Amino acid sequence: MDLDLARELAVTSDSKIVLYVIDGLGGLPHPDTRRSELEAANIPHLDRLATEGVCGLTVPVGPGITPGSGPGHLALFGYDPYRYQVGRGVLEALGIDFALQPNDVAARGNFCTVDEAGRITDRRASRISTDTCAELCDLVREIRLPGIELFVEPVREHRFLLVLRAAGLDDRLSETDPQQLGVEPPPAHALAPEAEGTASHINRLIEEAKRVLSGRQPANMLLLRGFSKHPAFPSFGDVFRMRAAAVAVYPMYRGLAKLVGMTILPTGVTLEDELETLRQHWDEFDFFFLHYKRTDAAGEDGDFDAKVAALEAADAVVLPLREMGPDVLMVAGDHSTPATIAAHSWHPVPFVLQSQWCRPDRAREFNEAACATGSLGTFPATEAMPLAMAHARRLTKYGA
Amino acid sequence: MDLDLARELAVTSDSKIVLYVIDGLGGLPHPDTRRSELEAANIPHLDRLATEGVCGLTVPVGPGITPGSGPGHLALFGYDPYRYQVGRGVLEALGIDFALQPNDVAARGNFCTVDEAGRITDRRASRISTDTCAELCDLVREIRLPGIELFVEPVREHRFLLVLRAAGLDDRLSETDPQQLGVEPPPAHALAPEAEGTASHINRLIEEAKRVLSGRQPANMLLLRGFSKHPAFPSFGDVFRMRAAAVAVYPMYRGLAKLVGMTILPTGVTLEDELETLRQHWDEFDFFFLHYKRTDAAGEDGDFDAKVAALEAADAVVLPLREMGPDVLMVAGDHSTPATIAAHSWHPVPFVLQSQWCRPDRAREFNEAACATGSLGTFPATEAMPLAMAHARRLTKYGA
Repeated sequence: MDLDLARELAVTSDSKIVLYVIDGLGGLPHPDTRRSELEAANIPHLDRLATEGVCGLTVPVGPGITPGSGPGHLALFGYDPYRYQVGRGVLEALGIDFALQPNDVAARGNFCTVDEAGRITDRRASRISTDTCAELCDLVREIRLPGIELFVEPVREHRFLLVLRAAGLDDRLSETDPQQLGVEPPPAHALAPEAEGTASHINRLIEEAKRVLSGRQPANMLLLRGFSKHPAFPSFGDVFRMRAAAVAVYPMYRGLAKLVGMTILPTGVTLEDELETLRQHWDEFDFFFLHYKRTDAAGEDGDFDAKVAALEAADAVVLPLREMGPDVLMVAGDHSTPATIAAHSWHPVPFVLQSQWCRPDRAREFNEAACATGSLGTFPATEAMPLAMAHARRLTKYGA
Repeated sequence: MDLDLARELAVTSDSKIVLYVIDGLGGLPHPDTRRSELEAANIPHLDRLATEGVCGLTVPVGPGITPGSGPGHLALFGYDPYRYQVGRGVLEALGIDFALQPNDVAARGNFCTVDEAGRITDRRASRISTDTCAELCDLVREIRLPGIELFVEPVREHRFLLVLRAAGLDDRLSETDPQQLGVEPPPAHALAPEAEGTASHINRLIEEAKRVLSGRQPANMLLLRGFSKHPAFPSFGDVFRMRAAAVAVYPMYRGLAKLVGMTILPTGVTLEDELETLRQHWDEFDFFFLHYKRTDAAGEDGDFDAKVAALEAADAVVLPLREMGPDVLMVAGDHSTPATIAAHSWHPVPFVLQSQWCRPDRAREFNEAACATGSLGTFPATEAMPLAMAHARRLTKYGA
């Protein structure tokens, strides 16, 4: 369902929807036991939810496509990730809670190593420490560009955020990271006539950076990717006619929720803190996005047992969540992060939706194989919101 | 995934993908045994592949649509068969290994029977022998059209290929086959102003043909359909960043592979020959399209037992194929050809994909009913390539 149709069919109600995102939820079998992380975990409350609700597997972006966190979450929020794209620069800003303004142009930066001829020898500058990155950001931040306010913020290791602030900037610029070694970083090119001025500012910055970073081995140069402005997405609350709140510990996920206009609730760092935050604000909102990160982190680390433990911790809040009495509870993932791959993957993601109005299916456990037998089948993640809205009795009839 | 996105996400790797197409793979139950051809066949290696891999049913073009060989294969190659259309004339040329040049306009011809008033009485001229067809082609080939090089090649029975070669020809022409009896064949009409000249050539040819064929009962006239030029499709190798080779015995399938720019490997006529060809070139390519025809031929003949035997022969090469060590092995069909229908059909087609990175599903046999329970569900055949690319680790992340 596209957002225009959602806006047309959405009606208000006093029902409540919770979208509980277990990041990197899906997995793959352990080579020894042939059981996936979810199959190995003891997750009685999720299993019960699967028994009582309807199950399926979500395809975050498309078959075979491994999504980043941006597209993975936007799809669950009901936003077609092909249509609603978020640039890398903006995502980097979201990830460190940098408050982008509408005119800002953001870019993801890497400190890198170049030889005497200026040719790249290491695109990641030996992954310098975050502290070193912060020192180098201090140097770059001192560069003066006429009429431009410059922000240079360390992110992690060799990565940093660059933001240019001024009226009339344009983000249609080519990247200065050639994604290969042995060549000089190319200058930024304007991809539209309106971006010529911004390109000059960027190229002047690069020239100055070359000078101030000279000799700062191994990080003696920088590369810029994903020039982008804060996108103007339709408001989730307007489209679905709900007061929507987000509870998330990591800035990236708060940022994605903010991008669609959700209210961000300040919260503590544990899942129990997040649950408590949700409880405190239960009466104020119709929709809650609750984000849990540890599963993805364990998967990315390739730590199967840690992912199993994180899933069991995720399971523990299901009962108290249900006791708050949501009319619709969805448990979903933005993508799979199998510990055996130690990275995001393309595999469809287990999904369960529980409400009074579910037509029960044959899935009795919450894992990849069981969800594959569920009545929702393997379906686009963008359909999760319309399904939730329907089960919450928040969508009117289509056609007479 | 559309080809532009595939091109954007594809990365190189040393992994290898094999697409093994068993033509006309899907079937229907035998009326006596209630078992389909695949269920009746003894195919232990395909069953094992189904157990270890992920299964589903492909929809070649759309629900209810019976595909020809062109759309059926293009879909498996990842090309949307609605968007990438191949005219009948071009397909006829591919089928007899005629080397079309970019300026050529090709048409599928039928010799037909007309009465004294010129009205069609048999659109297929009593299905004259291929030898008679060749004699008549010799006559038509003698017709002179100013500035045009003319090719008239027999295909089978009453069917032939017509090709006009000259600069500036246009294929936007109406057909001269009214697809009904009792009327005169209409002249070709230009469907765009640029095609006026080509229409005159065709109509002059038809007038001359009427003369040279006069009295050659029952084939005293001709009908032309599917005027078309060799389409300029994106290159499979460019899109997916792979060196791609095709191993196929029949010209049509080599032609379809050539249409997307695959390298055609010369091969012998048995499946064992094809396998040996593949083995000899294993190191030179990243992707292999292996085509097996006998299953379709048996299905078209309505010979259930012959199709079962052909499936068993198809099964026998699975083990040696696996022993070559492809990172991804897909077994698919371009369409179903149930022996009970004795023709191509619209039924979704069994599909299995096996790789190290498969999430196992519950399908334990390779047949229609078992594949319907597989985790890939019933899905568009165009998604086979993106799935293969993902499992071969040849697609980068979408979005950050």
